[in-house]
Amino acid sequence: MTADARGERADECTVVSNRGPLSFRFDAAGALEAVPGGGGLVSSLQPLLAGSGATWVSVAMGAADRAAVDEGRMVGDGMTLLPVVVDDATYRAAYDVVANTTLWYCHHHLFDLPRRPRFDRYWREAWEGYRRYNQAVGDAVADNAPDGSAVLVQDYHFSLLGRILAERRPDLRTVHFCHIPFADPNMLRVLPDAAAAELLAGLAGYGACGFHARRWEDGFRACYADAALAALAGTSTAPRTFVSPLSPDHESLTAEAAGAECERAAATLRAQTGGRRMVLRVDRVEPSKNIVRGMLAFEELLLAYPEWRDKVVHVALVYPSRQGLADYLALGAEVAHTAERINHVWRTPTWTPIALHVEDDRARSLAALTMADVLLVNPVRDGLNLVAKEGALLNRADGVLVLSREAGAWEELAGAALGVNPFDVSGTADALHRALSMDAAERRRRAADLRALVLARDASDWLDDQLRAAVAPSA
Amino acid sequence: MTADARGERADECTVVSNRGPLSFRFDAAGALEAVPGGGGLVSSLQPLLAGSGATWVSVAMGAADRAAVDEGRMVGDGMTLLPVVVDDATYRAAYDVVANTTLWYCHHHLFDLPRRPRFDRYWREAWEGYRRYNQAVGDAVADNAPDGSAVLVQDYHFSLLGRILAERRPDLRTVHFCHIPFADPNMLRVLPDAAAAELLAGLAGYGACGFHARRWEDGFRACYADAALAALAGTSTAPRTFVSPLSPDHESLTAEAAGAECERAAATLRAQTGGRRMVLRVDRVEPSKNIVRGMLAFEELLLAYPEWRDKVVHVALVYPSRQGLADYLALGAEVAHTAERINHVWRTPTWTPIALHVEDDRARSLAALTMADVLLVNPVRDGLNLVAKEGALLNRADGVLVLSREAGAWEELAGAALGVNPFDVSGTADALHRALSMDAAERRRRAADLRALVLARDASDWLDDQLRAAVAPSA
Repeated sequence: MTADARGERADECTVVSNRGPLSFRFDAAGALEAVPGGGGLVSSLQPLLAGSGATWVSVAMGAADRAAVDEGRMVGDGMTLLPVVVDDATYRAAYDVVANTTLWYCHHHLFDLPRRPRFDRYWREAWEGYRRYNQAVGDAVADNAPDGSAVLVQDYHFSLLGRILAERRPDLRTVHFCHIPFADPNMLRVLPDAAAAELLAGLAGYGACGFHARRWEDGFRACYADAALAALAGTSTAPRTFVSPLSPDHESLTAEAAGAECERAAATLRAQTGGRRMVLRVDRVEPSKNIVRGMLAFEELLLAYPEWRDKVVHVALVYPSRQGLADYLALGAEVAHTAERINHVWRTPTWTPIALHVEDDRARSLAALTMADVLLVNPVRDGLNLVAKEGALLNRADGVLVLSREAGAWEELAGAALGVNPFDVSGTADALHRALSMDAAERRRRAADLRALVLARDASDWLDDQLRAAVAPSA
Repeated sequence: MTADARGERADECTVVSNRGPLSFRFDAAGALEAVPGGGGLVSSLQPLLAGSGATWVSVAMGAADRAAVDEGRMVGDGMTLLPVVVDDATYRAAYDVVANTTLWYCHHHLFDLPRRPRFDRYWREAWEGYRRYNQAVGDAVADNAPDGSAVLVQDYHFSLLGRILAERRPDLRTVHFCHIPFADPNMLRVLPDAAAAELLAGLAGYGACGFHARRWEDGFRACYADAALAALAGTSTAPRTFVSPLSPDHESLTAEAAGAECERAAATLRAQTGGRRMVLRVDRVEPSKNIVRGMLAFEELLLAYPEWRDKVVHVALVYPSRQGLADYLALGAEVAHTAERINHVWRTPTWTPIALHVEDDRARSLAALTMADVLLVNPVRDGLNLVAKEGALLNRADGVLVLSREAGAWEELAGAALGVNPFDVSGTADALHRALSMDAAERRRRAADLRALVLARDASDWLDDQLRAAVAPSA
């Protein structure tokens, strides 16, 4: 944390997120084993909070985490870790059913509305679990945060916490930062009335709410301006809002990509592509990421622009996510099947058009980002998309970014990327062709512009913006 | 047509719709056989136009219709019929691929965005078919409409016709009436850029655009106000708009329901329900109609309110639609399976909880509307929903209307119906319970209010509003 923004009381700041920097599992012998906390949010926050003296409140999930809490092994790296113990049923209801299957889908506009969601009595009970989960975390913050201190709450797991803290601890300067998009009013109205009302009232309890893009900020404010939603929520007054896109930490990311492990991964990738051009994607297997349409667009590139046959490889580095959810398992199978079908149709004895890798290999991902001729980032809707910015920072091949206009990062990078409508497979194929055909001078200029846009903000700016937004309730 | 609104030149008005009042098929011997034109739009328009002297332009689809045109058998009932011949490939592209699979889904928010739509080269060709279809109809209108006459164009099949007519015949007073919802800006942006642009520019060419509800009018205007869409379309100026909900024709509907065929159907229904209470739905098998969630809500009613077991029957009168589309066939199977499963779980030797009838039987539908204790109309999104208004007019049992707030008719009937969020299965079950438990006085009052609201407008008011909106281009 930089001193100027946080002043002399940096040590009094509390950060709240679902996952913390440490999680535990039992090894084969039944002993506790620490594993680094997963997810982009944790990797972004950890270097910013290390050594700051701040308190990090997260949720201890599963028996191993709870045992680690009991043993006092949840200890911080120059910060105070405060894991909140939540029972399994509550956690599954809050995390799987409400946060990941309902709110994630709602804010990303992923519902297949004729069929899903179906809010039944099982779901109503899950919503009570979400409420208990927010209450448990709220109690921990309320019991521990110093008088008048800043509380920075991360993401859609904690929609109800604003009101809980406003009631119990009106002295606190609370901020909510939303890492994902925010639903349009008509999509938020899909939620059961009571849940939509509680969500808007919960968020209205925060001192300020932050977003990665103006577009999500607009959507959020539109929900309070919507007459039907305002009537449900009992308020048409949105909290103060601000926009602050996250950026990768320039120094640590560049250092990581220059390491020996990445060098080795780069050599392997070069052997795999055989000197051909590379269209890269790096993503979780996640419905919002639009991996299948990306592959179909690559197939249309081969179909409509035959000059690229045998000249380009689509390297798809994707890694499993949320495998407890049937939708994600089905998507993984569809991704694999689509790659196999396209390879079956198009491959030659020496060329396999799609190189699909389905495991999380950070060194390989970073190496690929340095090498890609084209980076394809085509989500149907995405809060920001950090990969687009990581690629812009790391790429050494004057790579072209083909970027969905539905990603939050589009607002920052539009001037230097090629934009695509993610639903338009043909349009995406055309953009890939344009990127691959671009002359060296334009590639160089665009790559330099992208890099400059990403260098204009560092990760610490994002945290500083949250602290600046954490003004006193009376302000 | 009433004289006051249309003045002395009623005979000069042209109405355009995809289907006309007559269609033809070949019988077993290969001879042409006339069948009444299908669909709610045709049934609403026909009595209004009969004897008016107006010209009705529609599309001759399939070989039998084209043969009937050749034989001169497309002749009108006090009006001039002008069938436009379109080749099969163009018709299938325009009607199945663009109108019904793309625009219908877009305006009804039915897309499963992570998977569908996928706009590929096949779709781009279909869009060219939609363009040819609009052009063919535009040519027929332009070649035939009298100087300065009114042209009333019905529905989303003709999004491009406004601009075509504005260019060829700027003297015409053109109106477009949209019978379905209009997409929110973020949903319209799902279309390929060029198609979204052409659609908005096409509609902007009309003198005025009408809708069944203020909500769709707002959505339409919001699309022109959306910066990204306006940039694509090259205009941020929406055409003049108006709201005019259709109503059933009171006289003819009441007469039809009083006929002998309906009497017989009522007796059969009474025998089937065995004197139990009736929760009715009457719908096409159509994803927007939300039939499965309606059945699940009925099951939750039995689960959560055991007093209704063996006391109520859910009569689901549904009829097949668009069976050339795989999604509709799958939905039909899901509807049948859901009813079978619920019946398997709950039935007793004397009671079958769901009476599912899958065929179009107009007399039975009208009879059921006169008898229902509760009419369930729970679409996920619906331009108007005429069944809700027909039920209000015909019902003689002080039936309660449980109505989705996402139906256009909600704007007129909210004060007298019970509103439901169509995605909320539990909320719908609670509304069914409330409707079935309502005391006689409240039922009577609400039924009278519903009837008065529907009687306040007749079908001719809707056509008059269109004619009034057809002012001179300079006005």
